[in-house]
Amino acid sequence: MTRKTESTPIEWLPGGSWSSVPGTRVGCASGGIKSGSEAGVRDDVAVLWAPGVAAAVTTRSSAAAAPCRWTRALAPGQATAVVVNSGNANAATGPQGQADLSATVSCLAEALGCSPSEVWVCSTGVIGVPLPMERLLPAITRAAATLEGDGLDAAQAIMTTDLVPKACAARSDGITVGGIAKGSGMIHPNMATMLGFVSTDVVVDPADLQTLLEEVTERTFNAITVDGDCSTNDTVIVQATAKGIAVRPGTAEWDTFSAVLEAVCTRLAKAIAQDGEGARHLIEVQVAGTASAQHAREAARAVAGSSLVKTAIAGHDANWGRVVGALGQAEVQGLDQLDLTFAGIEVVKNGRPCAFDEAAATKALSAPEVIISVTVPGEGYGRAWGCDMTEDYVRINADYRT
Amino acid sequence: MTRKTESTPIEWLPGGSWSSVPGTRVGCASGGIKSGSEAGVRDDVAVLWAPGVAAAVTTRSSAAAAPCRWTRALAPGQATAVVVNSGNANAATGPQGQADLSATVSCLAEALGCSPSEVWVCSTGVIGVPLPMERLLPAITRAAATLEGDGLDAAQAIMTTDLVPKACAARSDGITVGGIAKGSGMIHPNMATMLGFVSTDVVVDPADLQTLLEEVTERTFNAITVDGDCSTNDTVIVQATAKGIAVRPGTAEWDTFSAVLEAVCTRLAKAIAQDGEGARHLIEVQVAGTASAQHAREAARAVAGSSLVKTAIAGHDANWGRVVGALGQAEVQGLDQLDLTFAGIEVVKNGRPCAFDEAAATKALSAPEVIISVTVPGEGYGRAWGCDMTEDYVRINADYRT
Repeated sequence: MTRKTESTPIEWLPGGSWSSVPGTRVGCASGGIKSGSEAGVRDDVAVLWAPGVAAAVTTRSSAAAAPCRWTRALAPGQATAVVVNSGNANAATGPQGQADLSATVSCLAEALGCSPSEVWVCSTGVIGVPLPMERLLPAITRAAATLEGDGLDAAQAIMTTDLVPKACAARSDGITVGGIAKGSGMIHPNMATMLGFVSTDVVVDPADLQTLLEEVTERTFNAITVDGDCSTNDTVIVQATAKGIAVRPGTAEWDTFSAVLEAVCTRLAKAIAQDGEGARHLIEVQVAGTASAQHAREAARAVAGSSLVKTAIAGHDANWGRVVGALGQAEVQGLDQLDLTFAGIEVVKNGRPCAFDEAAATKALSAPEVIISVTVPGEGYGRAWGCDMTEDYVRINADYRT
Repeated sequence: MTRKTESTPIEWLPGGSWSSVPGTRVGCASGGIKSGSEAGVRDDVAVLWAPGVAAAVTTRSSAAAAPCRWTRALAPGQATAVVVNSGNANAATGPQGQADLSATVSCLAEALGCSPSEVWVCSTGVIGVPLPMERLLPAITRAAATLEGDGLDAAQAIMTTDLVPKACAARSDGITVGGIAKGSGMIHPNMATMLGFVSTDVVVDPADLQTLLEEVTERTFNAITVDGDCSTNDTVIVQATAKGIAVRPGTAEWDTFSAVLEAVCTRLAKAIAQDGEGARHLIEVQVAGTASAQHAREAARAVAGSSLVKTAIAGHDANWGRVVGALGQAEVQGLDQLDLTFAGIEVVKNGRPCAFDEAAATKALSAPEVIISVTVPGEGYGRAWGCDMTEDYVRINADYRT
C-alpha cells in the first residue's frame, strides 16, 4: 500500500531501472550458459555493483540452492556487488555446487578488489546440472572489468522464460529506488525462480533495511503466484549506496523510503505475475475483511492461485462460485455476508447471488487486468496478484524436453 | 496400507459396489437437475438405503454447503438413508438453501417412515443457484418408492463431470465393504466435489466407526489431488447395516474390517484421481522418510499436486528437478541424501543426479500409471495420488460457459 501516494507524490522515472540510483553500476556479459547465449548474443551474467549495505529475503524451500544459502548467511550486511547468472540454478548440485559457489565469489571479489563476504550471488535456470565454470568465471571477469552497462541490460541478462524485461525506478522527497526482476513463475523445465534486485541511495542501518524488506516482500513479491510452486532460488536483494539522505524508522524520511520501496516492489511483482507463462491477463485479488492483514493476504493469494479461478479468467467467465470455493478453502469466515465483484461487476451482495449481464461480464473480463474484489466481515486488508491459466501454460511446460 | 493383504487376503467382488453389502438397497430417479437429465435419460437423484449406524467426514471449507453442515451435525449416529443429488451443490445459497435442505430431509423421511435425523444429504453441482425443489422432491419420492436399483446405477446418478462411474466391493473373513464415489476434482464451472459412499455389514459402535473413517480418509480420499481446490461439498459417508459380524477396536475382526475399508477407500480414491479432468495418467507418489506419516503424506501430496510435476508427466518427461522443488516447498529435510525414481528409473541417488536413458524414461512415463518414489532420512511413510495436467484440463475449465 503506497500510503505515500496520498501525501507526497511518487514520481516514476521514465526508462528507469536498478541503475537509476546514484552510486550504482552494472556490468553484463555472455557466458554461454543460457540457451541461445552461446553466440554472445544474449547476456546471461550481470554484476550489480553498489557498494554499501544490503538486505535479502530468500526462498523458504528446504531445497534452497547453494547461492541462496550463501546470501542468507550474509544478509543483512555490507555488500559491494551482486552477481547473477541465468541458465543454471546451481540447485540440487551437492558439494560440487558449493565449491562452484565459492569459486564464483572469489572470482568477483578479486576482480572488484573487495572481500568475498561482500559478494552476493543469485542463480536461476536448470536444476541439478553443475555450472559450466570454465565459461562462467571468464564472463564474470569481463562483466566486472567495465561496469559500463545499464540496469535494463541486466534485466535482459537475468531473464529465463520471461517474455519481457522488468524494470522501474521511482523517486520521492529526494529518495530514489530502482529495481529489476525476473520470473514467470517457478516454471519451465527446471527453469525457475523469482529474482528481484532493488537499489536505493539512502543511508540506512542494514538491520532496519532487512526488517523493512521482509515486511515489504510479504505484501509484494510474496503476494504473487503463477503456479503455486515456490522455487529453490527465489531471492530479493536490496542494496543501499548511502549517496543520498539518511533514513531511520519513526521519521518522515523513513515513511517516504518505505513508500517508494513498496511502490517499486509492487510494480516489479505485478510485472512478474503479468508475464506468467502462457498468461494473457493479470489478476489482482483484493480482500477486505478477515481477522488480519496476513489472513486477508493469504485468502487473496488462495483465490489468485486457484487453478479453477485462473482457467475461468482465461475463459472470460465471471465464475464466482470458484472464488467462493477458494475463500472457503482458505477458511475465510463470514461468507454468508460476502460482497464480491468481478472486473467491477457485482456478482454477490451480502452473501446472495446478484443477477448480472453475462455478455457485459465477458467483455469486462477481456481486459488485460482483471480485479476480483472480496469484502467479508473483519478489519484485515490484503492483495495478491496472479495470472490466468491457458492451454499455452500446459503446452510450454509439457512439451519442453520431449 | 492394506496390512491385511499380507495375512488374510482381501477378495474383490467382480461388478461389486455399494449395494453388494447385505442390508442395503438403492433407488434412483431423474429430477432434471443435471444437464442432460431433463429427458429422464440420466438419473441425478440416488437414495442409499442402509438402516443402521453411520459416520461421515466432510469438507473443511468454511464455505461448506448446507447439506455438509447437516451431515456434520448428524455424524456419527443412526442413519436410515443418504440422499444424493447431482447437478446442484446447494452451496452459497444462503437461507433459501437451508430451507431447501430441510424440505429435502422431510420429504425422504416421510417416504421412508423414519426420523428426519436419520436422513443424511449430499449435493454436488453448480454453486450459488437454488435447488429446483419442484423437480427434486418428486424425484426423491420416486427413488424412495421402489429402492430397486443397484449401486452401479447410483454411481452413474451422482456423476457430474466424471467420465466413468466409480464402484467396488471387497470381502475378507466374512466382512463385506462396498462403495461408490464421484469427483474429477473440484472442477468444472462451479461443478465440484468429491463424494464417497461406503457400506458395510458389520455391527459397530458409531463413535468407533467415526474415528476409523477419519483415519482411513486421511490416507485415502484426503491423499488425492486433482487441482488443489477442495470443494464446498466434499463428503465421505460410511453406513453399517449390522447384518454381519461385530467388530470392536483391538480385535482381529477390527483389523480385518479396517483393512477392507481402507482397501475399498483406496481403490475409489485412485479411481477419482485417474478420472481427473483431462487426465491421461494416474500419478502415485510414495514418500519414505520425513519425521512422520503425516509429513510424508503432505510431501507426497505436494508433489502430486504440483502443476509443474503434473505438466511434466503429461509431457512424459522425467523432470525430477520439479519433484525436488515441490519437496523443498513442503519443507522436506535431508534432500542432500535424496533417492528418487521416476516410473522405476533411478534419477537421483544419495542426493546426486544419475545418468539415465531419456528415451527409456519417456517410454516408461507413457504408462497409464506413473509412480514417483522418494526416499529421504526419517521413519515416515505416505502416499498420494494425482493425475497429469493436460491442455484438455484448461480447455474444459476455461471454455465451459463462454
